[in-house]
Amino acid sequence: MDFDLGSSCDVLRRTPATLAALLSGLPEPWVRGTEGPDTFSAFDVVGHLIDGEETDWMPRARIILAGGPAPRFEVYDRFRHRRRNADRLLGSLLEEFARLRADNREVMNSYRLTAADLELPGAHPSLGPVTLRQLLAAWVVHDLGHLAQVARVMAKQYRGEVGPWVAFMPVWTDHETPRS
Amino acid sequence: MDFDLGSSCDVLRRTPATLAALLSGLPEPWVRGTEGPDTFSAFDVVGHLIDGEETDWMPRARIILAGGPAPRFEVYDRFRHRRRNADRLLGSLLEEFARLRADNREVMNSYRLTAADLELPGAHPSLGPVTLRQLLAAWVVHDLGHLAQVARVMAKQYRGEVGPWVAFMPVWTDHETPRS
Repeated sequence: MDFDLGSSCDVLRRTPATLAALLSGLPEPWVRGTEGPDTFSAFDVVGHLIDGEETDWMPRARIILAGGPAPRFEVYDRFRHRRRNADRLLGSLLEEFARLRADNREVMNSYRLTAADLELPGAHPSLGPVTLRQLLAAWVVHDLGHLAQVARVMAKQYRGEVGPWVAFMPVWTDHETPRS
Repeated sequence: MDFDLGSSCDVLRRTPATLAALLSGLPEPWVRGTEGPDTFSAFDVVGHLIDGEETDWMPRARIILAGGPAPRFEVYDRFRHRRRNADRLLGSLLEEFARLRADNREVMNSYRLTAADLELPGAHPSLGPVTLRQLLAAWVVHDLGHLAQVARVMAKQYRGEVGPWVAFMPVWTDHETPRS
């Protein structure tokens, strides 16, 4: 499937409402459960997505669009959310994520990006040369990957409860080694 | 995490709205894309979840609750949805899933299940002896597993579009071998 700006923005628009439908008001054990030490809970994922809005995707898009001789991205801290959200509740994080995403989408729409803009270059600190198009596609995939992670991490909380059905639940066995 | 009937029903309640937020009105390539031959698209997953409402979880719960000498489940057809929904559109499938799930939740609530009910036995055609509690836990995990699948299958549609970011997207590399 080729990149399409309009449908990419459509997917990005959906993530806050999808996560709210899945998580808002759920009891704590579902929201705070992880896959083991140093892995993300659903709560952590929402915090990580907020970090993405504030420090990753749009700041990097702005660096690309500003052009200049060295459109190099800042390093991204995947664990910023742990300190930032230590005293927060999930409901307020979901609302904050929805607001930040809506603001970022509005700014992105205001750029009225052309096909030529999408090929503008940036320099990722570890991945090297990338384009704005690749950054926007990665933003979409990053959302979907973390949505899959939330569902998988929730599923794992009931691993001990399904008896022999574990054999029919590839959501557990596909990803034996957890990640943050 | 121990099984809890109330919060299990809460998770089951959320699945139709979560899938609608993610999928309703999305362009066809996102909805119909798969991970390869004989694997499920997002459209297929919604059809499979409808099959679950009509032929799997509640019919099997009824068999358990009816008791008797041989509470044996019917065999479940994982591909029933392919014939059933050949001429359908996703929007109507999402509405149908929401209606069926709401009806099944209402019936389940009407049973006012006790702790003793949850230990009642059933016989799975291939997995052997199970309990109602395990069936209800498996229903929850089945929802979450297929939600993770939808997000993963969508993510894979952009695999060729993110350039070097593929290295940072475990949603692709966790599950190299696709499944239906």
